[in-house]
Amino acid sequence: MLWYNSFAVDIRKFLRPNIRSLSAYEATEISCKVKLDANESPYGFREASEAVKFMETNRYPDPEAKALKKIIARCFGVKTENILQGNGSDELIYYLITTFGGHVLYPTPTFSMYGIIAQALGEKRIEIQLDKEFDLDIEKTLNVIKRQKPKLIFLSSPNNPTGNCFSSDRILKIVDLTSSLITHHSLLSLVVVDEAYQPFSSKKGFLPLLKDYKNLIIMRTLSKIGLAALRVGFLIANKEIIHEVNKVRLPFNLNSLSQAVAIKVLQDRRTLQVHIDTIVSEREKLFKELEEMNGVIPYPSEANFILFRVVDSGKVHKGLLKRGVLVRNMKGVVEGCLRVTVGTPEENRIFLNTLKDVIKP
Amino acid sequence: MLWYNSFAVDIRKFLRPNIRSLSAYEATEISCKVKLDANESPYGFREASEAVKFMETNRYPDPEAKALKKIIARCFGVKTENILQGNGSDELIYYLITTFGGHVLYPTPTFSMYGIIAQALGEKRIEIQLDKEFDLDIEKTLNVIKRQKPKLIFLSSPNNPTGNCFSSDRILKIVDLTSSLITHHSLLSLVVVDEAYQPFSSKKGFLPLLKDYKNLIIMRTLSKIGLAALRVGFLIANKEIIHEVNKVRLPFNLNSLSQAVAIKVLQDRRTLQVHIDTIVSEREKLFKELEEMNGVIPYPSEANFILFRVVDSGKVHKGLLKRGVLVRNMKGVVEGCLRVTVGTPEENRIFLNTLKDVIKP
Repeated sequence: MLWYNSFAVDIRKFLRPNIRSLSAYEATEISCKVKLDANESPYGFREASEAVKFMETNRYPDPEAKALKKIIARCFGVKTENILQGNGSDELIYYLITTFGGHVLYPTPTFSMYGIIAQALGEKRIEIQLDKEFDLDIEKTLNVIKRQKPKLIFLSSPNNPTGNCFSSDRILKIVDLTSSLITHHSLLSLVVVDEAYQPFSSKKGFLPLLKDYKNLIIMRTLSKIGLAALRVGFLIANKEIIHEVNKVRLPFNLNSLSQAVAIKVLQDRRTLQVHIDTIVSEREKLFKELEEMNGVIPYPSEANFILFRVVDSGKVHKGLLKRGVLVRNMKGVVEGCLRVTVGTPEENRIFLNTLKDVIKP
Repeated sequence: MLWYNSFAVDIRKFLRPNIRSLSAYEATEISCKVKLDANESPYGFREASEAVKFMETNRYPDPEAKALKKIIARCFGVKTENILQGNGSDELIYYLITTFGGHVLYPTPTFSMYGIIAQALGEKRIEIQLDKEFDLDIEKTLNVIKRQKPKLIFLSSPNNPTGNCFSSDRILKIVDLTSSLITHHSLLSLVVVDEAYQPFSSKKGFLPLLKDYKNLIIMRTLSKIGLAALRVGFLIANKEIIHEVNKVRLPFNLNSLSQAVAIKVLQDRRTLQVHIDTIVSEREKLFKELEEMNGVIPYPSEANFILFRVVDSGKVHKGLLKRGVLVRNMKGVVEGCLRVTVGTPEENRIFLNTLKDVIKP
């Protein structure tokens, strides 16, 4: 037993120092009737079984995911050479930091994986607080970029968990500054606009700017539009960037099943769009109803979730859960707030009724 | 155009230095009738479609892969806390190096990903040539370990591409030396025995030694036994090691489809074993026939492939391919050799007949 304990000391000394203070990401599973905590689409697809019917399970996947990249290229009007496939966006964040190293800058609160992965890979994290409207603090951001020269800047827009898009002109200022030195044979930073929630947004995305800004990278995912089970994310960027990041990609990072199902589902983009449109219109209804509730302040959202403030968020979260409705408690991230994913009309109705019940005086 | 070129210079300057000299892993696809180049099992499973029939594609995977780990734990007689799941073994190599850092030692020739990933992550690679029997050069290895103190040692046994197991006593000497300092509150190295091909081996694996050696890690995969399409690998080790490596694991690294299909297939281990037994008996037949061929020297194998020497390996490789049979050319790895994966009895027959045809004087 003594021996065992001495080992427990050893292994921690043996780690890379940045790993010591790291905790594993906790994705706790809580059983509930209505699951509105993980920004999943309420609408799945039934094509999985058919898509893998003739799958040769004994063969390695296509390492280049050629067929999938072809269909994605068509969706976005780019070439396959502009696309890099990932086992979810998470893996692409890993690869970007592995490829370029250096400091990693992002605003807070935002998607937690930028910081977690930067720490896992031992890179310095530079966090800049969003302003009162959850928009980028542009003066501070530009100054910090000039001073600290981060290699990578992650901007999630629409932003998780706040739901808003950052002002286009502020993002543009960042892209402008960081790309301004390119013609002088040196780069300041790469800017990654994470558009995971862009399908639900009324604002224009940044894809059209790729041709003007060589240091811009767009990150997208299939996880929010009904395919979270697959783990498919991708980067869209200039081919020089794709070429370099591809060097650190594990050759078979995207399994055959996910490739097959994604291809099948993306062939019918009409159905995908119907689901998205339903979620957006449900979000608007949900927002109005939350706005009208006493003691509830919802924040406008361009995503498939709504952040809202309540008087006692811990108590409300617990009260909802007790009645079978799971939302995300944003304690420690946006104090006093909860985040609810837009579900089916029925799920949203149950959520609203339960919330009313929980917060009634 | 000038502008474009100047950017091409920039992006390379902007990379981490270790990425500059790295090339992407090339897994070229060559069309052929008989595919015996990738150490895949010739036997797939038809359960994929059924396993994903009721899959909720819109929900994230179980981040802990609880059901899969439970069945793997039962297969190997360990606890689930001793298991870490990976998107293929490749990803687990990534995670091990990310967690522990430091120099990475492995014999050569061996599985190429140890070196590629170490380079991608900027760690120093220490390569030690195998001896004439493709066994570990144990004196040199022990000396180098003492002198250079690698954090991680990767031993693929049975080894790819040579096919043999390293002598147990030599592996033991390495594990002994590297663990000897544990009781003095310090570790020398972690030893990862990659048992990807162990299912085909007549020699005992190293799993039983886990209770004696706290710095030992066993790596296994489902890729060689009929499930390469899924990308499922796992580590088996003491729970302290698993706990630490789990910190750098991406939370949803194993997609739902692969989890579901793996669980389904592992439930019927009898069928799995029948496939393995067939491959082993076919390997023995294949070996004998190769041994009897003029101008062919096969090396004994404990894996699902055979390394063999021919007079003009480049010409033979091309000749086989021209007739529709794809094997692996080991040029630059084991000069003068080809590597053939054991296929179905019919595929092996075609391979042998074609080889005879190609090398006939």
